[in-house]
Amino acid sequence: MALQCKKQVIRKDQLITAYGIIEMKRGVSVSDSDGAEFVPLVVIELAEDIKEEAVTWLLNRIKDKQQLGGAELLVDQLPLGGQGDQKGNPNMFIVGATWSRLLSGAEDVGLVKEFSDGSMRGFTYTNKDNFKDFLGDGDGFLSIAECQYIIKHELDTLRAKDETHIPGYAQIKLYPGKSIMRRMQSKGVLVQIFPLHDKEDLKKLSLSWYRKVKISYQPLADIRHYFGESMALYFAFLEYFTFALAPMAFIGIPYYLFAWEDYDKYVLFAVFNLVWSTVILEVWKRCSASLAYGWGTLSRKKAFEEPRPGFHGVLGLNPVTGREEPIYPNTKRQLRIYLVSVPFVLLCLYLSLHVMMIYFHMEVWVIGLHEEEPTFWTSLLLFVPSIIYAVVIEIMNRLYRYVAEFLTEWENHRLESSYQNHLVLKVLVFNFLNCFASLFYIAFVMQDMALLRQSLATLLITSQILNQIMEAFLPYWLQKRRNKKVHKRSQRTMVDRELPLTEQVRLEADMSTYLGTFDDYLELFLLFGYVSLFSCVYPLAAVLVVLNNITEVYSDALKMCQVFKRPFSEPAADIGVWQLAFETMSVIAVVTNCALIGMSPQVKAYFPESDTQLILLVVGIEHVLLAFKFILAFVIPDIPKHIQIKLARLEFQSLEALKKRKMLEAAGMPSKS
Amino acid sequence: MALQCKKQVIRKDQLITAYGIIEMKRGVSVSDSDGAEFVPLVVIELAEDIKEEAVTWLLNRIKDKQQLGGAELLVDQLPLGGQGDQKGNPNMFIVGATWSRLLSGAEDVGLVKEFSDGSMRGFTYTNKDNFKDFLGDGDGFLSIAECQYIIKHELDTLRAKDETHIPGYAQIKLYPGKSIMRRMQSKGVLVQIFPLHDKEDLKKLSLSWYRKVKISYQPLADIRHYFGESMALYFAFLEYFTFALAPMAFIGIPYYLFAWEDYDKYVLFAVFNLVWSTVILEVWKRCSASLAYGWGTLSRKKAFEEPRPGFHGVLGLNPVTGREEPIYPNTKRQLRIYLVSVPFVLLCLYLSLHVMMIYFHMEVWVIGLHEEEPTFWTSLLLFVPSIIYAVVIEIMNRLYRYVAEFLTEWENHRLESSYQNHLVLKVLVFNFLNCFASLFYIAFVMQDMALLRQSLATLLITSQILNQIMEAFLPYWLQKRRNKKVHKRSQRTMVDRELPLTEQVRLEADMSTYLGTFDDYLELFLLFGYVSLFSCVYPLAAVLVVLNNITEVYSDALKMCQVFKRPFSEPAADIGVWQLAFETMSVIAVVTNCALIGMSPQVKAYFPESDTQLILLVVGIEHVLLAFKFILAFVIPDIPKHIQIKLARLEFQSLEALKKRKMLEAAGMPSKS
Repeated sequence: MALQCKKQVIRKDQLITAYGIIEMKRGVSVSDSDGAEFVPLVVIELAEDIKEEAVTWLLNRIKDKQQLGGAELLVDQLPLGGQGDQKGNPNMFIVGATWSRLLSGAEDVGLVKEFSDGSMRGFTYTNKDNFKDFLGDGDGFLSIAECQYIIKHELDTLRAKDETHIPGYAQIKLYPGKSIMRRMQSKGVLVQIFPLHDKEDLKKLSLSWYRKVKISYQPLADIRHYFGESMALYFAFLEYFTFALAPMAFIGIPYYLFAWEDYDKYVLFAVFNLVWSTVILEVWKRCSASLAYGWGTLSRKKAFEEPRPGFHGVLGLNPVTGREEPIYPNTKRQLRIYLVSVPFVLLCLYLSLHVMMIYFHMEVWVIGLHEEEPTFWTSLLLFVPSIIYAVVIEIMNRLYRYVAEFLTEWENHRLESSYQNHLVLKVLVFNFLNCFASLFYIAFVMQDMALLRQSLATLLITSQILNQIMEAFLPYWLQKRRNKKVHKRSQRTMVDRELPLTEQVRLEADMSTYLGTFDDYLELFLLFGYVSLFSCVYPLAAVLVVLNNITEVYSDALKMCQVFKRPFSEPAADIGVWQLAFETMSVIAVVTNCALIGMSPQVKAYFPESDTQLILLVVGIEHVLLAFKFILAFVIPDIPKHIQIKLARLEFQSLEALKKRKMLEAAGMPSKS
Repeated sequence: MALQCKKQVIRKDQLITAYGIIEMKRGVSVSDSDGAEFVPLVVIELAEDIKEEAVTWLLNRIKDKQQLGGAELLVDQLPLGGQGDQKGNPNMFIVGATWSRLLSGAEDVGLVKEFSDGSMRGFTYTNKDNFKDFLGDGDGFLSIAECQYIIKHELDTLRAKDETHIPGYAQIKLYPGKSIMRRMQSKGVLVQIFPLHDKEDLKKLSLSWYRKVKISYQPLADIRHYFGESMALYFAFLEYFTFALAPMAFIGIPYYLFAWEDYDKYVLFAVFNLVWSTVILEVWKRCSASLAYGWGTLSRKKAFEEPRPGFHGVLGLNPVTGREEPIYPNTKRQLRIYLVSVPFVLLCLYLSLHVMMIYFHMEVWVIGLHEEEPTFWTSLLLFVPSIIYAVVIEIMNRLYRYVAEFLTEWENHRLESSYQNHLVLKVLVFNFLNCFASLFYIAFVMQDMALLRQSLATLLITSQILNQIMEAFLPYWLQKRRNKKVHKRSQRTMVDRELPLTEQVRLEADMSTYLGTFDDYLELFLLFGYVSLFSCVYPLAAVLVVLNNITEVYSDALKMCQVFKRPFSEPAADIGVWQLAFETMSVIAVVTNCALIGMSPQVKAYFPESDTQLILLVVGIEHVLLAFKFILAFVIPDIPKHIQIKLARLEFQSLEALKKRKMLEAAGMPSKS
């Protein structure tokens, strides 16, 4: 969709040496203010009313040599566009870099690439020729997503030198070492910064991914190439999850068709389910380790994490780096978490339960009313409680999300990762309760299995359909309509159907921003809950979830490629806190399934005299299953043996190299690296 | 007790430069065959009938320069001793090293020491002057235990070059890279290798440790200095465990004195107990991290682990090192574990339960017999079942231990650590069952709380007394008697009361070998079980365990200093698999305590109509407590914040240094390390 303005390509021969990554047929370049040409990779949008001196200063800092503390990137202002009728933000800048700058940046961010001997090693500029895919001047060595990630990193680590504030804005304070872009972003002077789509690549990717309906694996390597590791890992998990549920779905169908009420067999099914869900979660760790190893994120060393943009505090010395930066006492944060956030979350959970109880009371009241005097109006009235409850839940979810974000922001976490973890935890707990509380109530208080089955099916199906419409198709349709308008407008003035760069950038700037994989994982998490928590009363859930996941792949792919701005690639070695969330869910599933089995009349029939024996037996089985789960998780290694060996080999080699180097140094000989 | 032969000190001035660690007043040295003098640190005892050529070859390999593949250590044969009436093994050798060899060895083993800026860094020979306690030529920088550990390491890594077998022994094969000492040890040619005690240091240590009865902490720094980190960590844990139990003991006393049968309060006590035991185990992790950081073992990089002496297999290439070494397929080992060891262990567990049942039947039968016709003989007969059971348990324990060792050996683990883990697990499970099965039976099958309390007290007290007698005082008395004999004999010929080196070495060679902290931890583990599993029926257990631990410190200290050969120091950063064992025990304790509370008549009285409600409530509380435990373990960070910061700072600095070095190299300037 982007980077298409063949007319603008000038001096092709120069471009090859300066920037080898994009094949010439779709090479795009713009001229830097100094006349240097570059391919635009990232767009910076500043506030419309920003002061001129701030812009000049920022551009100079971006262009400055690294020795002078600059980022040494190429940057140019985006022209206002050909059409006068359209008023855009004039302060949009496109950023690129020379090839060698990108390579040295790859070293800064710690990219891990395949070495000539097949091992994965941290890329170093001096050693570049020894890496496997580094041919000639390195054409194709870095993917565009990696280049954009590098530019983002270099911009983020552009630090204030001796400036005390941003020129023209005395109130936006700076101190030596503060990241300029982060400060500008948190103060609203920087509106957004986003990487550009690449129409050619995108077309190829979408063709192999979702344009054709076919039975094959997803093109994970291409997805990773275009969107980065974090996205690729999400799609890999989605695919894995679908395949892993297939056996459960397969076994579930005959249960649904032939043995609806035969609990003896459900016990078998539930036990299989519980063991299976433990195994698939453990095996996923191994799969994700294999993927991450191949992508070079498993052995990647984490760079020192910068404070997140919103972090504030009294200026002090960071005890780790010794640099000046805001310091916020940990005890204060802990107090905020435990005295405000935790009670608030608990209050919300209580409220949510209360609303649920009101709903059940309303339901009973309406049914009573209808049974007393059944008229047309009372039969309509029967639907009212569910509708009200659904609406209220939706409103509560949204409200809670805002408050959770506000609270987590207010807790003032220094690191983005810790902010994310606290936010995920808050939202997760609340969503879990909202989704499953009514089912728990039906199952364990009302003990009405038929109703449970019915509610489960209704919830599962409606939430799936609603989700996919709201999340992908509706935005896609809106986006499509907008695109058409722009196309029409530009066709009025241009002969070529391809949009010029300026239009393209402005179009992408208006696209919605993808806010990360959070909501996608949350959806999978809730689906996993539907499958595992009540699997023994509704074996068909797995079938529904598998069907949903298959369409989910397509709708998510469509969403990523057509609806949203391209997101910056995020290196990721695993699915992080979600692994823990899924594992916790599978522990809870053991408890609920055992309880459901114990409550079934068929099982109860075996213990006609006393419930006591039955309960003790069920509790005993539950404990054994839980113990078995933990032993299983302990026995299955998290990293496959062959990856462990590769990692150990690398470590051994680096230790040996260090020893050799030291022996040479001790012998007075100069060390060669 | 050792290294005392002042007569032998010659050329004091030379000794200071050659070996600065031992202060001159107690300096000891022997002459190498080349005339070099050194302080004996480690003793190697070869088989009495070893062939002369093997000895010569071994000594040469030990003395050879490192460039030639030798260990570059100093070694000398121990003279046969002055007295003709005493025939010892003539093939005993004492090993030492020059000071600079020890320092370069310290780098090889990866010792971490305090740097001049207060951080802990890996010691390097070239940088030695920048370490905090390195004064002059490094006098006192390494403790003797460290020196002995270094010598052990250098001997262990003495590798075969092109020898195909040990000279004189065509059947003892060697291959390039095989550790010579390990091969000789596994073939019995090398009888033993042990470090020498240091009488002066030992006297100081024992004075501050156990000679005076006083209320103070143990001298952990001195213990670590003399015995190494692994031992010091054991004593630190013993001390910590004692202090941690003190509150439980303190609260337990009034329960014992005033409220013996009042279960309402026991519920409180049990809940406190459960939460407390979780907290102390979590806090211990933090303590141990602090200690290990200060000792330099926390940030120490693990060297590549060598195969253990008994490991065998087909010669192949190690995939990690690329070196030739025996390869044993992992699948084969897994088969042996899961098809032989696991079933065998389960069978033993079943057998042990069976024996217990027989005991209970015998008990019932004997009581019946006595009640039918009570005579003096039948009242004597009452004790017979317990005695038989105790004897049988003891026999089973010993037999099982041998079989467990045999099986684990047969599983053919490549690494000593993995061998140890598998052995610990096997022994642990069996001991747990043997110790607690009868208590479980009394508690949950017989439901006789009075008997439970009585058995608990009996078991606890007798096992404590027996343990300390068998483990420390009896061996101490035997050792003392032997020492006296030797002293008497030597006094006949010598005027000085101090024993000459030769006698001392032979005396120590005959002392028992300390087999590691396994049995000591096992004892603590079982005590922890007595305290936590049934805490709500017998609050006095904590008091007894605290009393036991206090004497345990003294008896263990006595044992280490007087009874055993000095053990080689073992670097350790935590208590390893025992942390997991203690945590598992505290999880089981939640289950048992909840069950005991639910079974108490006082609690049952609250639910007169039905047991069902009571059981459900108890199960509910149990689940909440378990969830709370896991959350608590998750929330409390394993490493204290200030240590985390120090570790992060070190990593940050090394990253920065790497960056700087690379920038210098890129600029074409030579790098300085």
